[in-house]
Amino acid sequence: MNENILGIIAGTLTSIAMLPQLIKVLKEKNVDDISWIILLVLISGLSLWIYYGILKDELPIILSNAFAVLMNISLLVCYIIYRK
Amino acid sequence: MNENILGIIAGTLTSIAMLPQLIKVLKEKNVDDISWIILLVLISGLSLWIYYGILKDELPIILSNAFAVLMNISLLVCYIIYRK
Repeated sequence: MNENILGIIAGTLTSIAMLPQLIKVLKEKNVDDISWIILLVLISGLSLWIYYGILKDELPIILSNAFAVLMNISLLVCYIIYRK
Repeated sequence: MNENILGIIAGTLTSIAMLPQLIKVLKEKNVDDISWIILLVLISGLSLWIYYGILKDELPIILSNAFAVLMNISLLVCYIIYRK
């Protein structure tokens, strides 16, 4: 199988798996289960993966980690808005 | 920076960010927030990333996704044991 197609399928699956948490937080406006420290660690790691993808010139790595960064920045914004 | 070292740092950060959920589930023995469908989607995606890493011969991709698969299989086992 073409590696790029494989990477896009892999990235789509791991991206889909991230959506429910954000949807739940947006619906329930409850961020008790979210740790901003963990989100910052995760966003740092994902950003380095994007940089890795750019250095290696691998679009699936760049796209799926860029999506994941967007998801987790959204969670961080929710955390800032909804925290008590 | 060497791309492999960059990938290992990125993978370490994203792996660290996965640990708290498993620790929380093991401590509280509560899997109400876990969806086995989402876990299966995630494990499928991560397994395809491992295959992608093998095809591309990229150790950081293989290692970090293998760790993530182990974490999520552990969560799935917890789900099976602790679900009501």
